[in-house]
Amino acid sequence: MSGEFAFHLDARDGAARSGRLVTGRGVIRTPAFMPVGTAATVKAMMPEDVAMTGADILLGNTYHLMLRPGAERIDRLGGLHRFMDWSGPILTDSGGFQVMSLSELRKMTEEGVTFQSHIDGSRHRLTPERSVEIQHLLGSDITMVLDECTRWPASAAEARTSMELSMRWAARCRTAFVARPGYGLFGIVQGSVYGELRRESAARLADIGFDGYAVGGLAVGEGQEMMLATLDETVPALPEGRPRYLMGVGKPSDLVEAVRRGIDMFDCVLPTRSGRTGQAFTRRGALNLKNARHADDPRPLDEVCACPACTRFSRAYLHHLIRGGEILGAMLLTRHNLTYYQDLMAGLRNAIASGTLDAVAADFASAQAEGDIPRLDATS
Amino acid sequence: MSGEFAFHLDARDGAARSGRLVTGRGVIRTPAFMPVGTAATVKAMMPEDVAMTGADILLGNTYHLMLRPGAERIDRLGGLHRFMDWSGPILTDSGGFQVMSLSELRKMTEEGVTFQSHIDGSRHRLTPERSVEIQHLLGSDITMVLDECTRWPASAAEARTSMELSMRWAARCRTAFVARPGYGLFGIVQGSVYGELRRESAARLADIGFDGYAVGGLAVGEGQEMMLATLDETVPALPEGRPRYLMGVGKPSDLVEAVRRGIDMFDCVLPTRSGRTGQAFTRRGALNLKNARHADDPRPLDEVCACPACTRFSRAYLHHLIRGGEILGAMLLTRHNLTYYQDLMAGLRNAIASGTLDAVAADFASAQAEGDIPRLDATS
Repeated sequence: MSGEFAFHLDARDGAARSGRLVTGRGVIRTPAFMPVGTAATVKAMMPEDVAMTGADILLGNTYHLMLRPGAERIDRLGGLHRFMDWSGPILTDSGGFQVMSLSELRKMTEEGVTFQSHIDGSRHRLTPERSVEIQHLLGSDITMVLDECTRWPASAAEARTSMELSMRWAARCRTAFVARPGYGLFGIVQGSVYGELRRESAARLADIGFDGYAVGGLAVGEGQEMMLATLDETVPALPEGRPRYLMGVGKPSDLVEAVRRGIDMFDCVLPTRSGRTGQAFTRRGALNLKNARHADDPRPLDEVCACPACTRFSRAYLHHLIRGGEILGAMLLTRHNLTYYQDLMAGLRNAIASGTLDAVAADFASAQAEGDIPRLDATS
Repeated sequence: MSGEFAFHLDARDGAARSGRLVTGRGVIRTPAFMPVGTAATVKAMMPEDVAMTGADILLGNTYHLMLRPGAERIDRLGGLHRFMDWSGPILTDSGGFQVMSLSELRKMTEEGVTFQSHIDGSRHRLTPERSVEIQHLLGSDITMVLDECTRWPASAAEARTSMELSMRWAARCRTAFVARPGYGLFGIVQGSVYGELRRESAARLADIGFDGYAVGGLAVGEGQEMMLATLDETVPALPEGRPRYLMGVGKPSDLVEAVRRGIDMFDCVLPTRSGRTGQAFTRRGALNLKNARHADDPRPLDEVCACPACTRFSRAYLHHLIRGGEILGAMLLTRHNLTYYQDLMAGLRNAIASGTLDAVAADFASAQAEGDIPRLDATS
């Protein structure tokens, strides 16, 4: 394993940047989309097929992994990379977001949070120090600080109280993190939709000093317009030479607009989760393969996509698989959606490198708005 | 597509035979195990991965395909091979077995059977002629005659009545079948566990003349001992130079014992269905990966198996996936089980070729009886 953890900016186009985040386990081309491998698997995908879509890095969920199979168990088995047979970098979240959204009987104090597992009701405790320790046991290449994902909506006073707790926890995570060559620790900016709080949070994190800076607490119900307005307030306050990660985002149009505002990294369950329920993302918007209009359609899902779902099967077949609840339907649509997301990111990286991001973003928006091409021979 | 449909016997060992069944879409090495691709997919598998396990031919289910997506629709879309992207041979059953086991409100007459779909309650009709037509529309390489799978248990009188109906239907199927180079039609011997009826059924089918002969109506609850005793009565009555197919069978030990009695072809949902629920077949018997004893086991499922589940992952990881209901668990265990079944068949073919089948069968039985090797360092 190489000793470097460094971010190189290669090109700019407006506020957007393209670059390379170098970790001990490999280079991440940015802007990057990280597929979510919740429970040590990107659902319905073999790891080599995830790599083939173009993914340089996966995200793992501390909350899920600490409950099942357990961080100490994964450590005994050789770490998360070996456990799931993924040799590239892995970023792990801190567990804080899922504790808030999934667990029961949470109790939050200055020290940390205690909660009951959503799987078996067992009691657990997560502190900044324990979260960092779990991520260390997993072998995470990029560790995220434990934060409180501020609820939405929140008053300015609530958002400040929550943000300040997250900042104290961020400092404790920095202290607890065992710095090693090739590994990084990211801070998380909070502050809800309040620009002043966001800027203060960014400044406090920069004072502590992290290898990258995430924007948390967005995509929680505020809508795209308010999310982008918050990015407009927040991103300029983030250190220029470090990667910027917008957590839990998002739809294809969210990615395009956030990249234009200077975001370098994303993760979201949307392409994988949607794939399992029959929704496919394409250049011309989302398609629901469950829809009866696909039943006789011999065309590929997307004629320019190189994934197996598009090159080897018809919409009619994908419709048949999804209607029948066939696992292969989930496999193929997940693979397509991840391919679409990675192709989108590759297109944005190329556009930034060639200084054509505005034109590429305009083409993207117009193709999405245009929608699917109807069949010429369709009778209904 | 080549014009041949022929069976070449290459070696014998006692009653067992090894050979090659040549079809227009490829050669099937016998004894052969056919993975079941019920609804135009071998569940949880990409078609190329099914081929990589060693499968030369798949089985498709007429009953499922006629209900969803429909035989005429598959024909319009270019046939079953193109629909599911499998270029090798496909054998389709007649639909009769599933009509009896899955559908509702069945009504059987001399002409055929009417029934309601288990999916949406729609009414359908299956006659010998319609079954052959559906299999033609699908593009099936090996068409099976429509028969009545005699219920178990059945008196000798009931079994005779049922067998005689199946023989009249077999003759109608022979007439309805459009003979084309490279395609074959198989008859199905019935007669429950009554040797006299089985021999009469075999003789009547041989008089009609088929490209292969199946033994139906077994593995329906009679148990392995009675099944094998029935094979002892039946197989010697089947034409020597044609492939013999034991339908819906079975466990690994069923395959070994049936091969020793001269059976050339098998199909069964056991390896695929079991894989989805956490059961793995190995040289040392079946393992249930759900069992807590695997939770910390770093060993491969089977150290001599070359499938991805065994070469790249631990039992602990497979246990984790199955416990969590992860699709990847179904994918990996299905792939392992199909690999195990194909390796077993390859071993039997080699044993027949080298005249060592008795020794190989004895080794098989003793390893199965010995069971899994406990971990040396296991603490519980």
